[in-house]
Amino acid sequence: MSDKPQFQRIAIIGLGLIGSSLAHAVRAQGLAAHIAGHDTEADIRGRAEAIYLVDSMHVDVADAVSGADLVIAATPVGACSDVARAIKHHLAPGTIVTDVGSVKGSVIEAMAPHMPDGVHLVPGHPVAGTEHSGPEAGFAELFRDRFSILTPPSGADEAAVESLAAFWRALGSNVEIMDAEHHDRVLAITSHLPHLIAYTIVETAADLETELEAQSRDDDVVTTREVIKYSAGGFRDFTRIAASDPTMWRDVFLLNKDAVLEMLGRFTEDLSVLHDAIRDDDGDTLFDVFTRTRAIRRSVIEAGQAGRFQYTENGDGED
Amino acid sequence: MSDKPQFQRIAIIGLGLIGSSLAHAVRAQGLAAHIAGHDTEADIRGRAEAIYLVDSMHVDVADAVSGADLVIAATPVGACSDVARAIKHHLAPGTIVTDVGSVKGSVIEAMAPHMPDGVHLVPGHPVAGTEHSGPEAGFAELFRDRFSILTPPSGADEAAVESLAAFWRALGSNVEIMDAEHHDRVLAITSHLPHLIAYTIVETAADLETELEAQSRDDDVVTTREVIKYSAGGFRDFTRIAASDPTMWRDVFLLNKDAVLEMLGRFTEDLSVLHDAIRDDDGDTLFDVFTRTRAIRRSVIEAGQAGRFQYTENGDGED
Repeated sequence: MSDKPQFQRIAIIGLGLIGSSLAHAVRAQGLAAHIAGHDTEADIRGRAEAIYLVDSMHVDVADAVSGADLVIAATPVGACSDVARAIKHHLAPGTIVTDVGSVKGSVIEAMAPHMPDGVHLVPGHPVAGTEHSGPEAGFAELFRDRFSILTPPSGADEAAVESLAAFWRALGSNVEIMDAEHHDRVLAITSHLPHLIAYTIVETAADLETELEAQSRDDDVVTTREVIKYSAGGFRDFTRIAASDPTMWRDVFLLNKDAVLEMLGRFTEDLSVLHDAIRDDDGDTLFDVFTRTRAIRRSVIEAGQAGRFQYTENGDGED
Repeated sequence: MSDKPQFQRIAIIGLGLIGSSLAHAVRAQGLAAHIAGHDTEADIRGRAEAIYLVDSMHVDVADAVSGADLVIAATPVGACSDVARAIKHHLAPGTIVTDVGSVKGSVIEAMAPHMPDGVHLVPGHPVAGTEHSGPEAGFAELFRDRFSILTPPSGADEAAVESLAAFWRALGSNVEIMDAEHHDRVLAITSHLPHLIAYTIVETAADLETELEAQSRDDDVVTTREVIKYSAGGFRDFTRIAASDPTMWRDVFLLNKDAVLEMLGRFTEDLSVLHDAIRDDDGDTLFDVFTRTRAIRRSVIEAGQAGRFQYTENGDGED
């Protein structure tokens, strides 16, 4: 909290989980004198207005960014190019433009060419999220104790980078500065590949009933109802991340293609080693791998990144 | 709770997460006049005794089961054959022998031939667990609102099956009766394949640094430290289930080989469809799959199987 807000007007473009969480967090920390909002979808705008998410809502994105000293594109990464084109004539010199996308190289490619002189493009990525979407999904604490990665292009204004870093720190994040290409490789393994795998296994399970039924009624059919019923055995953990926003994730995979395909190639090789170990009754290989992976979990917990969820004896809330 | 315990003496063989949770739950519900415990490892026995987990601890498994009217093998499934051989001469007629393993066909094969006349083998599987192991990991509520599947062999004593079903219901579980072969196929997709995939991706991430470093120092190295640091993007969900007990999971994969390899084959095909969609910039296929998988998550939540964890604003507990 400070007496004088860090920004006069923050424009948030896109009012999904991240955009709405930003609105809550900015308000909670008093970081802006005014929060302007925009979303391309009228339905989203209406729902955001119903919960008083922003101070002013704008049908035209140009109106939202006019007079803003911080503009945050909280859209799927595939929309960043359109956003840049739509706002470029309405940005005052000194304005910081950033985003929250999970891919950074393509965001720089999409936005940098449109930035007027004196406007500071500093792409960013808060490594935080839930499987929920929409303006009602946001909450002020989403970014607390999470990492926010900034990937300023070479030659970026240092004061603008520091200002944006201070903004994220005020929301509770730990800020890291990183090259965009490196960011995209790190996220390919820590986030993009895990999502791809989760989507795949949920698809495999969902298809089981249909495929088997199509073969023969005599087969031992595993039904979708059974898959869901017994999901506590492990499958449910995958359904959570496979419930993430489809548009956002389509864009991530298309725009971080090279790094994702590279990591997928490595994964497929490792999976084939375990496949062969099972086929060949090679218990030692299985045991060795399962012992190594256990140590990684301990490191995740020690790094404080295991999540902010607690077991409750009586609750039956979503994990 | 009842005035007269359902069993006079319950013998729990194996005092890991499931065995110790059973001891807590049996005691909490007053289901046994006496709980006898055994573990092959002296260290585990000592730790269990230190927390007064059972009423009597036995170095020799034969002593644990003598006089028991319910014997529960809570060992890795690969050990069931040894257990059956060690206890067979010490079981009184009328005793119910069960287990808690995640594979059922092989347990029947391993144990049934050793059961004396009048002893009732009714294999079981509580679909519940955490990534923690050892006698300190157990808690009485583990089985509450979870499914426990019983797979009685053909011709099993109906009264024994009903008695074991009543036991699990008293621990809070919903009981389902199922053919062992069908159980093994259902669990292959809902539990075994998810674990295999999780182990694999954690292995892939852990190997990244080493492999890349071996190639060239000029490469853009993603370090293990970075993987852990940014794991909140999705990877951390996999580390949790990849931290499960290595011995237990080695046995599961070796003993449910056919069903696991079949489900793995389907998964690999589905993964290759998504691989090609990314490679070919086919956003429509990605969007369609990601939309379908979202519906499955809703069903898991509606079925009350999403987990008993709640978000806490300030907690930083393990999820």
